[in-house]
Amino acid sequence: MTHSAPQPPVCVLGLGLIGGSLLRSLHDGGRRVFGYNRSAETVSAAGADGYDASTDLVATLSRAAQESALIVLATPATTIDAILDQIATYAPNCPLTDVVSVKQQVADQVYAHGLSENFVGGHPMAGSAESGWQATDPGLFTGAVWVVATDDGADPQVWRAVAQLALDTGARVIPAASDEHDRAVAGISHLPHLTAAVTAVVGAGEGELALRLAAGSFRDGTRVAGTAPHLQQAMLEANSTALLAALGETIDRLTFARDQLRDAGTVETLVADGFRARKHYEKIHAATDEPAISVEPGSTGWEAAFRNAARTGAVWTG
Amino acid sequence: MTHSAPQPPVCVLGLGLIGGSLLRSLHDGGRRVFGYNRSAETVSAAGADGYDASTDLVATLSRAAQESALIVLATPATTIDAILDQIATYAPNCPLTDVVSVKQQVADQVYAHGLSENFVGGHPMAGSAESGWQATDPGLFTGAVWVVATDDGADPQVWRAVAQLALDTGARVIPAASDEHDRAVAGISHLPHLTAAVTAVVGAGEGELALRLAAGSFRDGTRVAGTAPHLQQAMLEANSTALLAALGETIDRLTFARDQLRDAGTVETLVADGFRARKHYEKIHAATDEPAISVEPGSTGWEAAFRNAARTGAVWTG
Repeated sequence: MTHSAPQPPVCVLGLGLIGGSLLRSLHDGGRRVFGYNRSAETVSAAGADGYDASTDLVATLSRAAQESALIVLATPATTIDAILDQIATYAPNCPLTDVVSVKQQVADQVYAHGLSENFVGGHPMAGSAESGWQATDPGLFTGAVWVVATDDGADPQVWRAVAQLALDTGARVIPAASDEHDRAVAGISHLPHLTAAVTAVVGAGEGELALRLAAGSFRDGTRVAGTAPHLQQAMLEANSTALLAALGETIDRLTFARDQLRDAGTVETLVADGFRARKHYEKIHAATDEPAISVEPGSTGWEAAFRNAARTGAVWTG
Repeated sequence: MTHSAPQPPVCVLGLGLIGGSLLRSLHDGGRRVFGYNRSAETVSAAGADGYDASTDLVATLSRAAQESALIVLATPATTIDAILDQIATYAPNCPLTDVVSVKQQVADQVYAHGLSENFVGGHPMAGSAESGWQATDPGLFTGAVWVVATDDGADPQVWRAVAQLALDTGARVIPAASDEHDRAVAGISHLPHLTAAVTAVVGAGEGELALRLAAGSFRDGTRVAGTAPHLQQAMLEANSTALLAALGETIDRLTFARDQLRDAGTVETLVADGFRARKHYEKIHAATDEPAISVEPGSTGWEAAFRNAARTGAVWTG
């Protein structure tokens, strides 16, 4: 079992909410980990809290190359290309992963930089409306889902290293193909940002009195609309193809509901469908006995076997 | 000051989540209160918990008439007409209020039964996805907003009695016209049910894997879709005119966002508008220094003065 071998050090590029929380989680759990961030303020805050961080990207990548560290791309999606340029120059042979919320676009960018061989993408499904070092939390990933990209031809050793990284943070590892991941998150993560936004706008448009009357349904239903707009835009726009399909279906269903309410005085169809969907979600999340995937990474056809196992509720436990 | 006079007993018709919680809150706070519910099971559960409840509507109303009790209509919206028939027969002179989530339709029904003179509507903005006696909570209204209908010509003595009832549960009293209330709740309460439902349906449509990846944005954004469908339908359909307008605006804004994403690759407008709206809501709800309305009910033009004060952030404190 390779996962009993000593784990490589980890190099986290970008110390925002996700990258910073990852640095803290791994460090506090006893793994060797160092980080880079563009902002001196963030690096100095991290240093003051006892973490190993630098504002020097070239020095950080050279150190990663020397120590054969697992590099984690955790900078905003818009900076990925520039960072990949530097990785291709200073640390081209390091195993590489990322925590960006879309997977196909990053995989394409990595391919364009000739770095696909050592790359296995990842996406921890954790976050909050907060951002910055102050919001980082070493417990952010505990119990959260961490998708590890499981595309055909993935390097099994890199896959293992990335999955172990996720396990070390306390996350549950779910394998999925990059494009399948992107379609899924368009529906369950990106669309909810737009429905939260429109709910907030229409509600606030009713005036001050309406906002004073707002209770739980408005509070919870609009929460993620309070996320920093540039973060929301970067995330949603990087997944525009899948999001367009989800948004089109949303408009169709709301239009049907509007017509049914106008013509028949009822919202029965949408309310009944929504109730069923929510109960199905609650049932899936109440399940606590996730089986472990028993196939070994690298065996014949393991990528498809992993993806199928994940679709039926299994997780990778190392 | 009339509110130092002894308060009348309260008769709660319907012991679901709102009515049952009201019975418990008032009783636990020392007010004389008795209730009616159609279901023997609910009445027996309430009795076992030490509350005064009956399945006999005629007897309950006769007692209310004898004791000049304040009657609170808390049965489902679809049963209101039948209950008003009985009130007109057995307790036509009692002060009367309701806790239904739309105000104009109930006011019209009360008018049709000749009971307007002693009626002042109300709407506590509290609830949960739960229902039934088991879900009742004497603390449900603590800190919640309770709209007391403040239409021109409202009886100041009945208004005071209804507002005092709300204050006795720990709620904050906000005066609003019935139609203004209905437009406001269409935006901040009823529309969020439909956006939660459509978010749940589209997300669940992506399949089991997608639901397993669902995190906070989906969980919070779809919570109210889990409310019992018949309760959602009754609430939303009773406010169909105002809800149709809110739903139309929602479809327009989502269509604009879809077109902008398709044609310009950005969701900037909706995300920015949603962020501003959410922050505005948060600011309003962070305010802890609500001024008290100083006009006395019954003084000339008090109804409009109350409504104006409420629109600028004031509450009635007795």
